[in-house]
Amino acid sequence: MENGSKKWGFRGNQSLGTASAITIRGVLNMLMENLNKDDPRPAIPLGHGDPSAFPCFRTTHLAEDAISDSLRSAKFNGYAPTVGVLPARRAIAEYLSTDLPQKLSPDDIYLTIGCTQAIEVILTVLARPNANILLPRPGFPFYEARAAFSHLEVRHFELLPEKGWEVDLEAVEALADENTVAIAVINPGNPCGNVFTYEHLKKIAETARKLGILVIADEVYDHLVFGNNPFVPMGVFGSIAPIITVGSISKRWIVPGWRLGWLVTNDPNGILEKHGIVDCIKGFLNISSDPATFIQGAIPQILSKTKEDFFSKIVNILKEAAEICYDGIKDIPCITCPSKPEGSMFVMVKLNVSLLEDITDDVDFCVKLAKEESVIVLPGVAVGLKNWLRVTFAIEPSSLADGLGRIKAFSERHAKKE
Amino acid sequence: MENGSKKWGFRGNQSLGTASAITIRGVLNMLMENLNKDDPRPAIPLGHGDPSAFPCFRTTHLAEDAISDSLRSAKFNGYAPTVGVLPARRAIAEYLSTDLPQKLSPDDIYLTIGCTQAIEVILTVLARPNANILLPRPGFPFYEARAAFSHLEVRHFELLPEKGWEVDLEAVEALADENTVAIAVINPGNPCGNVFTYEHLKKIAETARKLGILVIADEVYDHLVFGNNPFVPMGVFGSIAPIITVGSISKRWIVPGWRLGWLVTNDPNGILEKHGIVDCIKGFLNISSDPATFIQGAIPQILSKTKEDFFSKIVNILKEAAEICYDGIKDIPCITCPSKPEGSMFVMVKLNVSLLEDITDDVDFCVKLAKEESVIVLPGVAVGLKNWLRVTFAIEPSSLADGLGRIKAFSERHAKKE
Repeated sequence: MENGSKKWGFRGNQSLGTASAITIRGVLNMLMENLNKDDPRPAIPLGHGDPSAFPCFRTTHLAEDAISDSLRSAKFNGYAPTVGVLPARRAIAEYLSTDLPQKLSPDDIYLTIGCTQAIEVILTVLARPNANILLPRPGFPFYEARAAFSHLEVRHFELLPEKGWEVDLEAVEALADENTVAIAVINPGNPCGNVFTYEHLKKIAETARKLGILVIADEVYDHLVFGNNPFVPMGVFGSIAPIITVGSISKRWIVPGWRLGWLVTNDPNGILEKHGIVDCIKGFLNISSDPATFIQGAIPQILSKTKEDFFSKIVNILKEAAEICYDGIKDIPCITCPSKPEGSMFVMVKLNVSLLEDITDDVDFCVKLAKEESVIVLPGVAVGLKNWLRVTFAIEPSSLADGLGRIKAFSERHAKKE
Repeated sequence: MENGSKKWGFRGNQSLGTASAITIRGVLNMLMENLNKDDPRPAIPLGHGDPSAFPCFRTTHLAEDAISDSLRSAKFNGYAPTVGVLPARRAIAEYLSTDLPQKLSPDDIYLTIGCTQAIEVILTVLARPNANILLPRPGFPFYEARAAFSHLEVRHFELLPEKGWEVDLEAVEALADENTVAIAVINPGNPCGNVFTYEHLKKIAETARKLGILVIADEVYDHLVFGNNPFVPMGVFGSIAPIITVGSISKRWIVPGWRLGWLVTNDPNGILEKHGIVDCIKGFLNISSDPATFIQGAIPQILSKTKEDFFSKIVNILKEAAEICYDGIKDIPCITCPSKPEGSMFVMVKLNVSLLEDITDDVDFCVKLAKEESVIVLPGVAVGLKNWLRVTFAIEPSSLADGLGRIKAFSERHAKKE
């Protein structure tokens, strides 16, 4: 039989190529293929949002014990309910309620496979013909990918570097129309490292209310703040506009590979329920995959037993690293940082290609930096801003200093000679 | 502010309701709500596919140790590659290759969140305007739900009870047209408990080749066989037609809550690659959630260390339970079993409502059985066959005998008086 000559009637769904065209994972993989294998120095990863491989960022043993206890109990080997196991939902409701004026109920909490599945859920639930969603630029490209997959139109509003990356709310009002369903905000900010004030968050909620849209509050970096602004959850303003909060244990506990997150309805007025959003969330979770049950089973212990000194240790390392990063960048003429990072694990810096001799743009900069200096930095185009760079400072501080030194050497070598 | 009077512009995606209308989870939940709380007897669950809660079905300690070791190593706290960690892909390739004429490569293996995500992936990848897929009746309704979600047309072929639930291949040929992309078969069978012969599997592959379509081989119950037919993986026939095998550790290791499965390309002629299926699988995984990394990290140890006596213990319990179930059913006039189960965890039995006085159909039977006898059985309509029942025998044998006794008492009480 000659298989080659047979006419086969299937082919891959073309729209998947479009939806997954730009992902951070894809861009980082491309850069890593450009690393010079003959460089004896270790590669320095300043592109990721996952510091778990560094010993100083190792999660607390108490969280590992919680998983192990849950596993060994043999109570969580079976399938979980669609929305997650009740003790975990209850524990997350209590955990999040400490920062809120109203108390969340376990019914407000849906367990998801990390924060990414929570984003997938809400974008799928909101998709309907002609609907559009407002997303920040720069932002997190997984939103754009899932919106494209669900045929949800994306309209971008700018974050303003000169205003500490606040949302351009006038532009938001101009962008929205009767088909706009939601606005997404990421706070603490990825990729900008900013932390919104109470007042600014309230204005976002008021704008959402004016426009009749809901707010998707991406708080995956919640509590990772080390500047002047405290972390304020968007859910505080749930009585102004309905808020869908998405988050996870990935960043605060430095365990992104554990794949445990949540989607939360902060909606004391019951508007999401009334508009069919709650039923659709349940309906979609019913045909979706669940987080591992024994990891769900560990959540009450993880949330209640983790000690404050673990959290403060992590925040202190991030604070120190952010300082090193900010100071190091000031020392490199071709990149400038509009505002000092105060939260999350990233900072956005502007690349001035006109100061460089043989670098055409941010991607070219990052490819050559990987080749010549074994340093990985994310080109801004991957998060929506051409000729910017997203630099992660969530690595061992000594490696960070080394990486910044290499970026400086690279920049000097490629500087235009006057 | 009066939130009630505000016009909100979002509403839930209506098509999600359709896609998730019938799920086994949903039907079982409905039945459980009908249990009589005043019944002092324990409820007997004969509706599920998850025996993990029964002590005799507890997974091997070696598998728990593997997870614990992986967790404690702190090497798997971070994000995994899109397609899964290499050692796990390599281990699964080796594990599956022992039953195949050709050796699988790690590149043929994609890690998924249980078998269900593998089904989600392939149905999404195959969806394109006007495409249709051939699904068995009775079957596993998650296929129908995901096909509806992806707007992939479903055409059902019958499994023939009088022929040991073999595929009606003539009907398959009559159903297919130029827009047919795939046929799905579940072997060992859910819901029928049958095991296909080598010859029948080969005929399915030849039919697929004739029609120019691929085969989705759902082998989530692989190796759970205890009759005359050995388990033969469909991948054996990968050179006849391209095979996508989906499976997981859920059933053989009795850990469905661990959410670790795989999608495998059995395609020595490279047809899937050539038709863009491989790129689309990677593209979709790129925007999908991953199984927990430390569970992926445990796979090499789970697959290599589990002892044969664990597998044979499980198969022996299932064999004993299948006998009890088959004999018990013979003793109940209103239900008949067309063929003795030889694999998986289920048997399909036909309900003769004409022998019953006040039972209108299978759903009515199951609701009243739950209310009066605290026994949960899945109505056949949930798997596509009205007035049949799917009975799980994967429970403690003594509970199974108790449950069958209660079904008998129920049937006698509702029997028509001649």
